[in-house]
Amino acid sequence: MAGSQDEVKLLGVAGSPFVCRVKIALKLKGVEYKFIEENLHTKSDLLLKYNPIYKKVPVFVHNEKPISESLVIVEYIDEVWKGNNPILPTEPYQRALARFWSKFIDDKCVSAAWKAAFTLDEKEREKNIEESSEALQFLENELKDKKFFGGEEFGFVDIAAVFIAYWVPIFQEAAGLQLFTSEKFPKLYNWSQEFINHPVVKESLPPREPLFAFFKGRYESLGASN
Amino acid sequence: MAGSQDEVKLLGVAGSPFVCRVKIALKLKGVEYKFIEENLHTKSDLLLKYNPIYKKVPVFVHNEKPISESLVIVEYIDEVWKGNNPILPTEPYQRALARFWSKFIDDKCVSAAWKAAFTLDEKEREKNIEESSEALQFLENELKDKKFFGGEEFGFVDIAAVFIAYWVPIFQEAAGLQLFTSEKFPKLYNWSQEFINHPVVKESLPPREPLFAFFKGRYESLGASN
Repeated sequence: MAGSQDEVKLLGVAGSPFVCRVKIALKLKGVEYKFIEENLHTKSDLLLKYNPIYKKVPVFVHNEKPISESLVIVEYIDEVWKGNNPILPTEPYQRALARFWSKFIDDKCVSAAWKAAFTLDEKEREKNIEESSEALQFLENELKDKKFFGGEEFGFVDIAAVFIAYWVPIFQEAAGLQLFTSEKFPKLYNWSQEFINHPVVKESLPPREPLFAFFKGRYESLGASN
Repeated sequence: MAGSQDEVKLLGVAGSPFVCRVKIALKLKGVEYKFIEENLHTKSDLLLKYNPIYKKVPVFVHNEKPISESLVIVEYIDEVWKGNNPILPTEPYQRALARFWSKFIDDKCVSAAWKAAFTLDEKEREKNIEESSEALQFLENELKDKKFFGGEEFGFVDIAAVFIAYWVPIFQEAAGLQLFTSEKFPKLYNWSQEFINHPVVKESLPPREPLFAFFKGRYESLGASN
């Protein structure tokens, strides 16, 4: 349970979509926390202490109790700070669907979209473009005519999909790719605009320019590293 | 909510550890259901209707509402039939840990253990043996001196780990591999014996012999298919 003596820390890196999910959830719930910026090249003792298994961010630490895996963290935040702005629906079937689609985003969109942009091998690239497009089409269909995946307010699936709303448009531009466009996925595109301009989300996103420069650098070094 | 007019169906195949997770959860909750055996070579219209995205089993259908993904289904069952035998803990931090470890099993154990047994390439095989051993060691440590991952009664992590308790010993024998043994992982081994001999679990497992024969056939055809 949340209490007034809560100590809340988030270990993360600014540019990570997974860390951003946690930031959005905390902002939505109005939870004060200390952000500890990690350097993933030289993993800190704190990171190794709190996440000895994956040694990855985000790690959420509530009163010295650590949790990793962004979706597990977001669900925990929803359960502890449950008074306002629910993240998951209350009805069991709707909760199951929210969990299903969030997992779908992690399993089917994240890696495929990333590889579509940053794979040199043409065949592999094509395969990942096709897989990402298929996954985005499923999301386009699922959105139907709702404002957010969560309905009138954004929720668990929207938070999981911040990678699609904000990261994919940046890195596809850096890689000269037309993966997620308003022509191909009009509903999903409108959703993404609503979502990233929502005040809670907008304040939780990292600035675009350094992220774009990072992806551009990564894309341009692709040939060099092979 | 569960009601007396509930129609509960499970689309599955007998030999699947993921289907077995759902069977254990239903048995634990005392839910009556209709099992519909699927043939994954010729996907049925019912399967395509209820799981158009993955076209895979298990699919759980409650009053015509379908859910896929075994862990999502198990959590749904726990939320709907919540009166007795809780599957997830009630305390949010313990719930988060249960979700973390269940995901760990899916991400780190299932594919690595499978590939350790059924990969022809020696280097790839070695890599997967190492990864599986490392993952099993984390579980061995996590179990500590508890009877089950869930404590005195089995819960979400135990159900997720049925793959390790029952499937791994069968297919490692078929593949002549010593991946999960009582010498290497004594606590995990004791847990696996407790778990598969629990009356609820025992009645939910498929018979060993056809499973062993299937894996043996698969192992022996490895060379032929390459």
